[in-house]
Amino acid sequence: MPRIITISREFSSGGRELGKRLADELGIPCYDRQIIDMVAEKQGLDKNYVANMSERDVKVFYNSTIGRGFTSYNFGINQSLQIANAEHNLIRELAEQGDCVIIGRAADVILKEYNPLNLFVYADIDSKIARCKERNQEKESLTDRKIKFMCRDIDKCRANYREMFTDSKWGHRESYHLCINTSGKEIKRLVPALASYVKNWFE
Amino acid sequence: MPRIITISREFSSGGRELGKRLADELGIPCYDRQIIDMVAEKQGLDKNYVANMSERDVKVFYNSTIGRGFTSYNFGINQSLQIANAEHNLIRELAEQGDCVIIGRAADVILKEYNPLNLFVYADIDSKIARCKERNQEKESLTDRKIKFMCRDIDKCRANYREMFTDSKWGHRESYHLCINTSGKEIKRLVPALASYVKNWFE
Repeated sequence: MPRIITISREFSSGGRELGKRLADELGIPCYDRQIIDMVAEKQGLDKNYVANMSERDVKVFYNSTIGRGFTSYNFGINQSLQIANAEHNLIRELAEQGDCVIIGRAADVILKEYNPLNLFVYADIDSKIARCKERNQEKESLTDRKIKFMCRDIDKCRANYREMFTDSKWGHRESYHLCINTSGKEIKRLVPALASYVKNWFE
Repeated sequence: MPRIITISREFSSGGRELGKRLADELGIPCYDRQIIDMVAEKQGLDKNYVANMSERDVKVFYNSTIGRGFTSYNFGINQSLQIANAEHNLIRELAEQGDCVIIGRAADVILKEYNPLNLFVYADIDSKIARCKERNQEKESLTDRKIKFMCRDIDKCRANYREMFTDSKWGHRESYHLCINTSGKEIKRLVPALASYVKNWFE
């Protein structure tokens, strides 16, 4: 059975970087945004549109369409579920191809039958603000308050998305095998030992 | 500054074994029950009495003495706080002596100024039941129901004890640097990579 590592993460905690570096260290592929690109291509949809839809969950979509009529609501939900379904099929196809790291998209739930090693990456708010600013140096408009709002909002979407497919909770330690706090740490320094942990886990 | 690793753990999750093995792997001392023995000796109290008092927190003690009169209640609280205080002083003394692993007793809070690496060890209830039965093979009376009750009760005591000294929560991921799920795993297989993680952390 392929060795699958899934990364769930708080927004701006460094989870994506950790996943990529971990995959490099293990010499296996890492799937992240490529999933969106591949789904967009398969569905004949715009990449940004898919990215936007797959970040949102049906619950959030429902709230944003209240008062816009049933047709718009219904179309939105269908589209959202269709994209989620295409993503899940693709994630299963990728897992079938062999060992890999998959970031986000509730892959830990979707790939449950593969017994993946599920990691959760988190950090304190100061570290997340610093990381977000460093990553978006050109965007001067990103105030601390705005970043805090983004962190809360995006994490809420991720939690809601996960809860559409399982009753195990996003971010609750019992849903994961290892929860990694990256506050104030350089991700690259944490990765070699994590790679050893992964190897031992699957031995 | 000494490199201090603190282990907080759910009852029967294998946290004590993990702490001891980690200390062995790192070649540093591990302090656990010795803390009770040393405090008992210093205070001229019975070891079992100290163990019993230090497992309980003031809140639990208060509940158990309701209706027994103020004197009994007051004596109990004083004794409980006196033992906690002696434990904390001893924990600071031990930390001053050099690198070490300290299990339980809110050492992560007591030693905050040493910037310890704080680990939390947990497991699912089936693994905890299995571990508890394996450890207590001679005690036939330990039914699954009884073990579940013990797990809940002892963890509640630990959470209450911690909350006497800090507002950061016991078992909440943000209180720790790494949360380790031991469900269905042999502790000794997880330790070498964790030792590498510890070394990288303090580099």
